Parts: sequence; structure tokens; C-alpha cells
Amino acid sequence: MADQLRRDYLSCYGAKHLSTPHLDSLAARGVRFCKAYVQGPVCGVSRMSYYTGRYMASHGSNWNFVPLPLHNPTLGDHLRALGLRVAVVGKTHVTADHKGLKRVGADMPSTAARLAAEGGFEAFERDDGIWPGLTVPSHNQYANYLRAQGFGGSNPWHDWANSAIDGGRVSRSGWSMRWAHLPAAIPAEHSETAYTTRRAMDFISECGELPWCLHLSYIKPHWPYVAPAPYHGLFGADDVSAPIRGTAEQSRAHPVINGFQSQPASRTFSDDAQRRHVVPAYMGLVKQIDDQLGTLFAFLEERSLWNNTMVVFCSDHGDYLGDHWLGEKELFHDTVAAVPFIIASPDAHVRRGAVESRLVEAIDLLPTFVESLGGEPATHQLEGRSLVPLLRQEPFAGPWREFAISEGDYSFRNSVREPLGRPIDGCGMFMVRSARFKYVHYEGLAPQLFDLQDDPLELDDLGTDSSRAHVRQEHATMLFDWMRGLRIHPTIRDRDAAAWTAKESRSGLFIGVW
Amino acid sequence: MADQLRRDYLSCYGAKHLSTPHLDSLAARGVRFCKAYVQGPVCGVSRMSYYTGRYMASHGSNWNFVPLPLHNPTLGDHLRALGLRVAVVGKTHVTADHKGLKRVGADMPSTAARLAAEGGFEAFERDDGIWPGLTVPSHNQYANYLRAQGFGGSNPWHDWANSAIDGGRVSRSGWSMRWAHLPAAIPAEHSETAYTTRRAMDFISECGELPWCLHLSYIKPHWPYVAPAPYHGLFGADDVSAPIRGTAEQSRAHPVINGFQSQPASRTFSDDAQRRHVVPAYMGLVKQIDDQLGTLFAFLEERSLWNNTMVVFCSDHGDYLGDHWLGEKELFHDTVAAVPFIIASPDAHVRRGAVESRLVEAIDLLPTFVESLGGEPATHQLEGRSLVPLLRQEPFAGPWREFAISEGDYSFRNSVREPLGRPIDGCGMFMVRSARFKYVHYEGLAPQLFDLQDDPLELDDLGTDSSRAHVRQEHATMLFDWMRGLRIHPTIRDRDAAAWTAKESRSGLFIGVW
Repeated sequence: MADQLRRDYLSCYGAKHLSTPHLDSLAARGVRFCKAYVQGPVCGVSRMSYYTGRYMASHGSNWNFVPLPLHNPTLGDHLRALGLRVAVVGKTHVTADHKGLKRVGADMPSTAARLAAEGGFEAFERDDGIWPGLTVPSHNQYANYLRAQGFGGSNPWHDWANSAIDGGRVSRSGWSMRWAHLPAAIPAEHSETAYTTRRAMDFISECGELPWCLHLSYIKPHWPYVAPAPYHGLFGADDVSAPIRGTAEQSRAHPVINGFQSQPASRTFSDDAQRRHVVPAYMGLVKQIDDQLGTLFAFLEERSLWNNTMVVFCSDHGDYLGDHWLGEKELFHDTVAAVPFIIASPDAHVRRGAVESRLVEAIDLLPTFVESLGGEPATHQLEGRSLVPLLRQEPFAGPWREFAISEGDYSFRNSVREPLGRPIDGCGMFMVRSARFKYVHYEGLAPQLFDLQDDPLELDDLGTDSSRAHVRQEHATMLFDWMRGLRIHPTIRDRDAAAWTAKESRSGLFIGVW
Repeated sequence: MADQLRRDYLSCYGAKHLSTPHLDSLAARGVRFCKAYVQGPVCGVSRMSYYTGRYMASHGSNWNFVPLPLHNPTLGDHLRALGLRVAVVGKTHVTADHKGLKRVGADMPSTAARLAAEGGFEAFERDDGIWPGLTVPSHNQYANYLRAQGFGGSNPWHDWANSAIDGGRVSRSGWSMRWAHLPAAIPAEHSETAYTTRRAMDFISECGELPWCLHLSYIKPHWPYVAPAPYHGLFGADDVSAPIRGTAEQSRAHPVINGFQSQPASRTFSDDAQRRHVVPAYMGLVKQIDDQLGTLFAFLEERSLWNNTMVVFCSDHGDYLGDHWLGEKELFHDTVAAVPFIIASPDAHVRRGAVESRLVEAIDLLPTFVESLGGEPATHQLEGRSLVPLLRQEPFAGPWREFAISEGDYSFRNSVREPLGRPIDGCGMFMVRSARFKYVHYEGLAPQLFDLQDDPLELDDLGTDSSRAHVRQEHATMLFDWMRGLRIHPTIRDRDAAAWTAKESRSGLFIGVW
């Protein structure tokens, strides 16, 4: 997984000025999904859906840093039950529910409690980045690594890895985008992307012949937009694609869109000069990830691991980079909610180089892993569906899904919420992406509607177009149907519900018998 | 709380042949609610809502014996935080999520883990009854008590307390309703109702001056319908009210209703002779509870506890007893989903003897307790609203609720589900009770609709009446609105979401600044 990586910045997804040959080779080995949606357009929500196989409405972590409620078994729980070692190298954005763990008497030194606190991952290398105002945790291995290389100070993550060097001497914080053209203050080999790749190989080496699942989770190309040499200079202003945006998107913006358009990142990226200054750094960071994946893929090749390893590439969401007069993320345009999604499986029957256009969701990965490993996906907990039939072009039961869902909540963004006069518990957003349309419900406000057949770039919001009232109603009905189908009861298996009557009889319970 | 107690079997709620003077006196001390709905028409679902202050869709325990998912703080957690000792004497129907507790590393000998396994209650006396086929747990205090009184054997709960004595010698199992006219095999003083009352007084005595909350939870008048002498003989067939039912309810029954009408309890109670044979025992059990509450109330009086104790009386759901050609529960007629609900508070400002007709829900109790104790209800977890303004006739913010919700799931009932061809995950039922109507959504099947103004007995199902399509649509919209408003994120407080922006700035996070 890459963080905040746009789909259209990979050449296999159509990028023009940026070549990602290693990811392209992965797509050639497997299936590339061109309508894959994350279940939330912000890191935490999206990741908790990837990690639990459940929608936000079910896992309950409705924004970044919202502790993952304890009723969610995770990818780690599902795959460890099948005999795998399950670890993370990189970012997860998991916040432990320490209050909940204390409430239920979790024994924190125990392995189980520590796993629960880490979202089910063994923290082989956990690194979510360290903001300037935070204290560096003593167990942050990357910070310790940097210090050992001579990149010291109170916060080497910020002061070196995410700062730039100006004129060979002056350090510039990556938090100011004006420095995006400068090289990082550390060489590429010590950058987070390269270090993370090496740590992934360490993990794989350590596992040897034992089965494993590794969440290799690059923190880049997420901001700070600072790339090490030579990546900082590979691309220039002329390589930057034009933003996807139209004048009507500003002049008659939906109130929530308008609120986000007023945020600093949106203002910066709506300025053409600033945008063309920053995007090349983003492109460099993407290029570096592709190069590093080349190293990793060669490592897998050397060890003959392609024969027994499923490799998935995806991101947690995109980055507006000025599209729709927006920066950052949190909303539902394809720029952000539709992600790169490539699955290369060693299975002999897999379709190689295929492009799959059915609607898939990030939560489909977990049941795909379980089925690929010969397990039976826990349907009372997992809300996605296995993609194995699509990987092999095999028949599947019933129709494929008719719509994909993504959810958000802007209650944490006072600068958006307060001008709209919305209460904290009234800032829910729901995207319904059907074969042709994208509908976004905003609690207490007008919806958005895009006709992706006539308007694939999502420039013309039909959310209040009176001629499309029936389309909006159809999509509201889909949303309602979806909500009623959520798996609210993760503690009882479907088969146990079905077996209840027999169990009741065995227990000597005969109700109402004369 | 009484188990399976119908509202209309209390004289303060209009019972004609049964006088419950002690409960009537409680109503005279406080407020009697005449439109109080439980959040599920079956023990487990309803109780988990009472105990968590959350709807079934949020707490996730969708039927009896479904382990309570770990993300739910309980009444015990909320009130212990305010300094109270919180215990149960009697039944809770809580099933621990042992798998979940193990997954998160709960240290089972610890107090916190044991409380979590008990739904947050200190098990001063936990007794859910012991079916004939089950082994008696060694810690079941009532079973041990019975043995000490000479009522021994492998299962004294069944063999003595819930069996009848025929002709002074032959024991008859209470599981066969044909023996309902006989007295229990033990004297009233050793019956569960009397024992439970004494244990409640033991708890209160033990607490002394320290603040407490006791869930006194009678297992009766729930079946087995066996009352001890003299209660078995206080009422006869002539005292039994006519069932509430119409011929159309059988001839054109909704498919789910029809399925439940075919269950043994429904067939038994639809037979007038059998019904008139059994209901007197139910009435005797209710009368015994009222007498025992008389003892408890005198105890409170002696110790001057009425001055500082809030007393609430309610039940987890009713009992069809033949109404609508049904036995047992699980569906949404007022017979079952509307319960007795009386709150007597020592507060000087409380309305005494008032009858409150606003729609209230069982989940309102928990925030009522918190507010009465001077705490602030955790709005990110508690989905009900405090009744304190209704108790005191004080102003409250906004309008009162426009509808009450109750939820069910018949997936566990193979004999209902299979003939309908419904999948395990497609048996959800949702009741929306508005000021005038009751609407019931059945997944994949026609809804039900009752006009409670014109048809207060719910005999005329308008679920497919073409002239009421708009009413059904309005209620489906209420249901959709309600679902989107569920508090899905119990790990983050509203105020913390609102304070995020400031926290972000303090942490040195400035996103997208040029």
C-alpha cells in the first residue's frame, strides 16, 4: 500500500509524464482493477476498512485517530487463524482503543492485547511519521536508524527525512510546500521509502519457509512533499498534467465542497504556479516507490517467491492536487475515492494482464486472502466479497455488486462544519457509485450526483437537477438497502444462527408445548 | 425488571381481573409512561439495549445468546464512573464474548474482564434459569440454596422450582403447559421470585451508605408457567381476559406472522381451553411479583431509602398469550413491544402520579440515570435521551422524538425462515412507531402498517393497502433517517471531534501551507 497515491500517476493507469515500469510489470502478471473504491476517502477510515474487511458504519472508526472499536477482528486475526505470520512494515494509522482495552481487562503485556492495540498486526516496523510537535517514541525504529546514520536531533523524521536542503546548507521544513523543489536533507538510500523496502525484505527473509502476510505500507507519496535526490529533480513544471476542474465547480459548489475548497491545501493547489511547483515532488516520490518495488520484486524473483506469493498493490486514497479546486482528500471524486488496485497471484489459472472493470471495494481484499489460502471467509464479520472468481474468471454466485460504497465524516473539520451550522453528529457523507452514476448523500444538505457516462471527470454536479430526481431516489434506495445489510453481529456465525433450532432441542427447551 | 411481563396485566395499566396495588403505588409516586417501547421484542436484544443504552443495530447482539460485542460500554461502566456500585440480582441473558475477550488479551481473573463478561454487572446473584438439558453451574446460588432447603437432585431449578406437584405427590415438569393449574413443587417462600427479592435486600443492606445501582431482575412471569401456592390458585379461567385477535389476522396473515403463528406456543395459546388453563398461572406469577415488591418497598420505607433512591419498574417485553393468534414474543404488536415503564424518583420536582404519553424507549433509562446522578450522558455511545425533563415537566431542547424503534431478527428460527426462503442475513425486522402509526419493515417481504388511532388493537394490517402507500413511504424514510443517525463510533467523544482542529494546530500539523 502507498499512502495518498493517485491512480492516474501510474503509467499502467494512464499517467503520461511518469513511467512506473515495475508496477506496470505487476499489472502484467495479474489483474488490474479500474473501478476499485476505498471505503473512506481519508487514511484512517480507509485503512480500518482494509484491515477489518468492514465498512466504516460497521468498524466505527469514523476519521483519523479514532480508536478502532474492539468488536472488529482484523486481517491479522483472520489470517493468523490460517497459520500465517501477519506483520506490518510502515504505516497503519491504527489508534488503539486503550480505554476499551482497559475496560475489558486486557492484559497489555500479553501478545494478544498488543496485537489488538496494533490493529492485529505484529509491529515488525511501525512508523506513522512524527509531526514536528510530537515527541519521538523510543521504539520508532526509523528514527533510531536515522540517528545511527548521523541524522540526529530531537525529531530526525522531520528534521532530516522530511526536510529539504537549500543551497547545500540550509534546512527547510517539508511542511512548507514552497520547498518542494529542493532535495531531501538525506540521501535516497536513507529515505523512508528505501528503508521501508529493506525492512520488508528483512521480514520476508526472517520468515524463511514459514507462511506470512506482510502489510508493506509506504508512508509516501503522502505529504510532506519532499523527495530525496535524484527524485526531487526528475520532473519539472512542464511534466505536470493539467488539473481536472471546471469553473462551475467553484461558482456553484456544493456547500461541503465549498468548505473544503477554502482549506489551505485547496487554496495552494488551486494556484497554478504553486501546484506546478509541488506536483513534481509528488511525482518523484511515486517514481521512487516504483524503483523500490523493482528492488523488492527482484528480491522475490531471486528467492523464487513469485511462485507462492500473492502480491497486491493499492493505496488508501488519492490526493486532489488541485483537481476540482481541492487539495488533500476527504471527499469522493474518483481522484481520491478510486484507487490503484492490482492483484498478482501465483495461481496458474489467474488472468494475466487483464483489466477488470467490475466495481470492487477495498474490503474485498480480506475475503480474497482467506479464500486464496483455502479458508472460509467469516461472512458474519467480513462485508466485502472474495475477488478470487474475478482473478480466475470463474463463475460466482448471484450477480456481482451493483454499487460500491464509501463513507466520510467532516465533523472533525470545524472550518467546514461550523459555517454550515451542522451538529457534530450530523456530518456524515455516503457515496454510492453505481454502474453509471455517483451519488453522494450529505446529512442535512443537498446531495451530489454525477453521470459518469456523460461526465467521467465529474465536473457537472446534478445533485439539484430536477430532471434527475428519480436517479437520486434510486441511489438513496441503494444506500438504504446497503445500510440494512450491514453485518452488525460479529459475535455469531451465520451457521450458528442456522443451527440454533437443533441446539435448542438438544438443550431440552421446548417452548409452549401443551 | 420483570421478564416477559405484559403491560396490561398490571392494574395501573388497566388490568381488570388482577390487582397490583404495590406497582400502582409506585406509579402514584412517580410517572407512568404509556407509550414505552423496548428496542427488541425478545429477551436478549431488549436487555442488551437496556444495558448499553444502544439500539440493536449498534450493540450487535441480534438475538438471545448472541455474545455482546466488546465495543459496548454498559450501564455498569457508565454508573461506576459516577461512583456507584452496580450489580445484578436475577436474570440478564448476557452472553460473554469469550472469543473476543481472548482475542484482545483479556485477563479473565481480573475484575474488569469478569465485569465485561457479565455485561458490566457485578454478579451479586446471577440466575438465568437452568433448562432441563443443561448442567447446573456450581456458582448458581439459587440452585445451591434450593439444595440446602432439601430440594436436591441434578437440577433443582427445574425439578423443584419449575415443576408442579400433582395430587401432593407426583412431580410434573413446568415445560408442559398442561400442568399450569398445579402448584409449584416448592412453597412460595423458596420460589425464585421471593428468593430474588430477599437477595436484592441483602445487596442493599450490604451497600449501607454507599451509592449503588441494583438491577433487580425477576425471571418471572416468563415460562415455565408454574406458580407456587397460593398464587397458582388465585385466578381461574373466568378471570382470563379475551385475547386480542381477529379472523383476518389468520386468514391473510403477513408471511412472517404466519410463520410465528405456526410455532407450538402460538398453537397452544390459540386454543381457548388451553389458553384459559395457562393464563391464570401467569396472572398468579404477576401477583406474586407485586406482593414481593410490596415487601421490598416496605424495606425501602423502613430504611428511609425512598428519599434518595430512584425506582424504575419495567419489563424486557410482553407475552402474546394468544393475542393475534400468537404465543411467546419476537414480533412488534403492542402486546409485546410496548412495556410497563414506571419511574419514581425522590426528586422533589418530580411529577407524581402523572401519566406520560410521549414516546419513550428502553434505552432512555441509561442517560436518565446518568443525568439524575449529575453526570453528563456520553452522547457518542448512548442513543437514548434522558427522561429527566419529562419526569420534572421541564423544558428540553428541540422537539421530542417523533418515532420509536424496535428491531428483530428471525434468522434463528428455521421453522419461520426456511419456508420463506430467506437467507440467514436477510431476516431483519424494524418497527417504526410514530405518533399515529406503526410500520414494520421485513427484509425482502411486504411491510406491515397499523393505524393506531383507528385500530388501537392492531387487527387491521394496512401493509399492502394501496391507499396508504404514502404513509408507508414516510415511515420508511423515518427508518432510513434513524439508521444514518446511529452512533457508530463509541471510541470518540463528540467534544473531542469538535476539539480536533485546535489539537492539530498544537501538534504542529499545518497541512497544505505554501
